Amino acid sequence: MRKECYEEARKKALEFYEKAAIVLTDEEKAAIEIADFGLEDLEHIGLILVTFVNTDRCCAKEMVLFPGQTCPEHCHGPIPELHYEGKEETFRCRYGSVYLYVEGEETSNPLGKKPEGYEDTYTVGHEIVLHAGEQYTLVPNTKHWFQAGPEGAVISEFSTKSLDEYDVFTDPKINRTPVIE
Amino acid sequence: MRKECYEEARKKALEFYEKAAIVLTDEEKAAIEIADFGLEDLEHIGLILVTFVNTDRCCAKEMVLFPGQTCPEHCHGPIPELHYEGKEETFRCRYGSVYLYVEGEETSNPLGKKPEGYEDTYTVGHEIVLHAGEQYTLVPNTKHWFQAGPEGAVISEFSTKSLDEYDVFTDPKINRTPVIE
Ligand SMILES: [Zn+2]
Ligand SMILES: [Zn+2]
Repeated sequence: MRKECYEEARKKALEFYEKAAIVLTDEEKAAIEIADFGLEDLEHIGLILVTFVNTDRCCAKEMVLFPGQTCPEHCHGPIPELHYEGKEETFRCRYGSVYLYVEGEETSNPLGKKPEGYEDTYTVGHEIVLHAGEQYTLVPNTKHWFQAGPEGAVISEFSTKSLDEYDVFTDPKINRTPVIE
Repeated sequence: MRKECYEEARKKALEFYEKAAIVLTDEEKAAIEIADFGLEDLEHIGLILVTFVNTDRCCAKEMVLFPGQTCPEHCHGPIPELHYEGKEETFRCRYGSVYLYVEGEETSNPLGKKPEGYEDTYTVGHEIVLHAGEQYTLVPNTKHWFQAGPEGAVISEFSTKSLDEYDVFTDPKINRTPVIE
């Protein structure tokens, strides 16, 4: 991601954290993580994160999705070499709304839409709609993706240890940890 | 705790969740936990909680302390019979301020004050002051207590599994799970 894009997205993200009344320190504001997953199409596919804590045992993040933005399909499987049974995550919507897609019966007429041009890499379609105050827990090793509604979304993630570099994305073009140039 | 006291505290707690812009569902609002630790002195010693998630692996709560209210000194030690190494907790202040006391060098002129008449049961005095946006992580098996500043406090707790009934309080009169009459 280019530095100007990063800075623009960071400023926009701050507005969403403010809308949700999430108070961040100056250090956190300066270090907001903007993930474009190496696709360089942040408007459609991306995720904004502030990680509050990520120890060996548990993790909490405050995430932002811009209106209509999608966090691409992925899965947190077991990591045998680390004796890790896989990440368990709970998403709690704090502001706006989020359409979460998990394994299970495909929802007809879903509120969200697979990102155009990437449809092949979105394979699960059981929809869970979360408004502010609503939440959902995912057990390890289940595919999921999520998309913000028209107002965007601020979402807390409560989970076991995050090891982003081990996440398995359905789209082979995705690189979870691209560099900011 | 008497039902009227519970209801009064619950309504007051809702005002604090609102000040912090924490959105709760109606079910969560109806089931707010008011802990007086069996001391029946809620104004001075107590804790208000909504538990969002508490699985075998991780837990998230949103807590309220009324102005000057104290969560009494306790410790989360290992629980060998459950093969549990003890609860790790991160407190993140979301609104107001909280004075947290942990093991270590006693702070001279601390901002908080041990509750009157209970001084003997507060033995650690290393002060950490958290304002909105600030946080602190406690490893298992360390004594701690905390008190809200003059505006009260809303505090997120991110932790490993909560097993409140195993918490060890310094005050032997404390009962973590008293009944509402
Ligand atoms: Zn995930
Ligand atoms: Zn504790």
